[in-house]
Amino acid sequence: MRAEIISVGTELLLGDATNTTARFLAERLALLGIDLSHQVTVGDDPARLTEAIRIALGRAQMIVITGGLGPTPDDITRESVSQALDVPLRHDEGVAEEIRRRFERARRPMPRSNLRQALVLAGAKVLRNPMGTAPGQLLEREGRLVILLPGPPTELETLWLGEVEPWIEGKGLAEETIRSTVLKTFGLGESKVAEVLEDLLADSSSCTTVTLVQEGEVHVKLTSKAPSAAEALRRIETVAEEVERRLAGYVFGRGDETLPSAVARLLTKGGHTLGVAESCTAGLMGAMVTSVPGSSRYFLGGVIAYANDVKRASLDVPEEMLSRHGAVSNPVALAMARGASRQMGADIGIGITGIAGPGGGSPSKPVGTVFIAITGPYGSECFHHRFMGDREGVRLQSAKSALFHLWRYLRKGLG
Amino acid sequence: MRAEIISVGTELLLGDATNTTARFLAERLALLGIDLSHQVTVGDDPARLTEAIRIALGRAQMIVITGGLGPTPDDITRESVSQALDVPLRHDEGVAEEIRRRFERARRPMPRSNLRQALVLAGAKVLRNPMGTAPGQLLEREGRLVILLPGPPTELETLWLGEVEPWIEGKGLAEETIRSTVLKTFGLGESKVAEVLEDLLADSSSCTTVTLVQEGEVHVKLTSKAPSAAEALRRIETVAEEVERRLAGYVFGRGDETLPSAVARLLTKGGHTLGVAESCTAGLMGAMVTSVPGSSRYFLGGVIAYANDVKRASLDVPEEMLSRHGAVSNPVALAMARGASRQMGADIGIGITGIAGPGGGSPSKPVGTVFIAITGPYGSECFHHRFMGDREGVRLQSAKSALFHLWRYLRKGLG
Repeated sequence: MRAEIISVGTELLLGDATNTTARFLAERLALLGIDLSHQVTVGDDPARLTEAIRIALGRAQMIVITGGLGPTPDDITRESVSQALDVPLRHDEGVAEEIRRRFERARRPMPRSNLRQALVLAGAKVLRNPMGTAPGQLLEREGRLVILLPGPPTELETLWLGEVEPWIEGKGLAEETIRSTVLKTFGLGESKVAEVLEDLLADSSSCTTVTLVQEGEVHVKLTSKAPSAAEALRRIETVAEEVERRLAGYVFGRGDETLPSAVARLLTKGGHTLGVAESCTAGLMGAMVTSVPGSSRYFLGGVIAYANDVKRASLDVPEEMLSRHGAVSNPVALAMARGASRQMGADIGIGITGIAGPGGGSPSKPVGTVFIAITGPYGSECFHHRFMGDREGVRLQSAKSALFHLWRYLRKGLG
Repeated sequence: MRAEIISVGTELLLGDATNTTARFLAERLALLGIDLSHQVTVGDDPARLTEAIRIALGRAQMIVITGGLGPTPDDITRESVSQALDVPLRHDEGVAEEIRRRFERARRPMPRSNLRQALVLAGAKVLRNPMGTAPGQLLEREGRLVILLPGPPTELETLWLGEVEPWIEGKGLAEETIRSTVLKTFGLGESKVAEVLEDLLADSSSCTTVTLVQEGEVHVKLTSKAPSAAEALRRIETVAEEVERRLAGYVFGRGDETLPSAVARLLTKGGHTLGVAESCTAGLMGAMVTSVPGSSRYFLGGVIAYANDVKRASLDVPEEMLSRHGAVSNPVALAMARGASRQMGADIGIGITGIAGPGGGSPSKPVGTVFIAITGPYGSECFHHRFMGDREGVRLQSAKSALFHLWRYLRKGLG
């Protein structure tokens, strides 16, 4: 079964709103194993909407039309669907009565225009909307399923989850089961990951494998369609283990795991405590580490050492080292890490110093140059990076790379 | 001129990502007075993309195609456009050279697959991408304008603003004039802002006024269509001044202004320096303050005082104060602010201490309780908040509120 979403609303085409309901529906359809082939947005324009419905009828078996079911003259979905399908509209007294009662309960007079919302496609199942005045509608016609849903996200989601999904499952339309798993990697570019997984990306016989980039991380998403959930998960697992084998040392977790939560697990396991010293990231790594509930068990604190005076006074970085090597250097990063460990009373210290830009770069140390040092019970290490991107990009990559290096350090140390 | 956006990416149809770039482009096209009539999303499927392009060619004069320009085999936009338009692809050595240099600068080996990104439609203008390896392309053909842009938002936005818009304006394709201005407020809820502006929201005679919520800020967007840009801006200005008058003390800026940049302006104006002491936000405020380029002129650094031992040792918060009032209290926030100022050698200090949750709350100090203190040349202040929301929400509101209080403190102090 192939599905298409038609989103109706001039506000979407003017950029006044992001189309979050399309994403919600896309996610739900994927879980039902229904192939969403197109999503189309049109304005509150009867001719364009009618044309979009006709195109969809030619290529999809399920058409979900969202928005344009309000009471105002620019709510044109009912009439346009009626025209495109050549199905008349009828006044539904049950719906009208419910709208009247809603206004009574809110002790507000009902504008007459609201009765337009009681117009229903002949033969359609009416989906009662507990959150608003516009009901949903569901019409089966000539092998096609046409579903009308109100645009406001909470109304749409309530109707979809409470009415539409149970109906689809009751009809047995969700034949197959789709399951998916995301493996999260850091430290390799997307093209490198794609190269290592080339044959898996090309082979969709047991599951489809795609790479996605999200905030500097490369995610590998495995999706399998199978007659049962257990079978889908078994197929995914086989490929997932192969991906983890090939990308060993880069896959830090699956699903909801984040770099901070992966690090949290290892810090807790080893009974370690952490202190940070941040220059160019200025607190970003501390904020990331503490995004995990309960992080006070292992995170003690840190120094945001933006000015060189602070590096000296709060972290004991020697003046001579700063003037000889510069604040953005291997020795200073290590001294910062040691200072953080000592100052916070933590057994592991991290030091980050770099040039986020746009200014401050030089030929030998261009914008994007960042040193990340770790010191602790498993020895000291320092990493020299040259990140691409703008100021925020360099800072984000710096903080995430520090988490990634720490994750590897702990894995190696903990064996 | 009628435009259509075609978004390419299976991840959008699986609900793995929200289509934020479509909104960005919609907003920009509206500002140019170009009528966006359709937005269509298709997966990484050459047949469906080719068909979508053919449909668009039949109804739009400008077609913007986003995504699918990466180096992997499922990046099929180049080939599909070539086929739909019947225009061959050629290897562009200039683009290839730039890709090679990018990898050299990052000291990473270039996978061969990246050279696919040097394929360009014959006759197309190449739009250099300073943020990534995929260039944009712009092709004029038979009265149609076809624009290819990479999918990652920062790359797409940079190319659109830096290359495409100037080109469109240079060609005189933007017929009508729409202008809009966003006034940014903090500290009031959306319903309160809507109440204060009720008559303006209802009156669209000279410009339309809408409220938008973005990351805890309430924005007021004013949009005007007029025969000339000057006239549109004049109409907006009249309403903008009225909004600023009614919401005085809450509107911190317009357009690209952010809370950190508004604070930066005032710190610079007063010749002040800043140090922070963060407990529950753990570096988030430092990271926000330093998101502004050149922030080293006024930001010296800070202490992430997550553990009580760090509050004592690094900020001189007295043991007796911690045990008597608790770490989340008015006196401790003030002592942290003073410690930050002293320790960093800054004339202004900020202290933030609170309970971000989900654990750690009590009946007298529930989750969301946060104290924010400021000390400096204009006196000392402490604010007691109870934020709603989850852990990340409480932390974000805490850091932003600290910036907002600092902005008000500086405005008052500077007169």
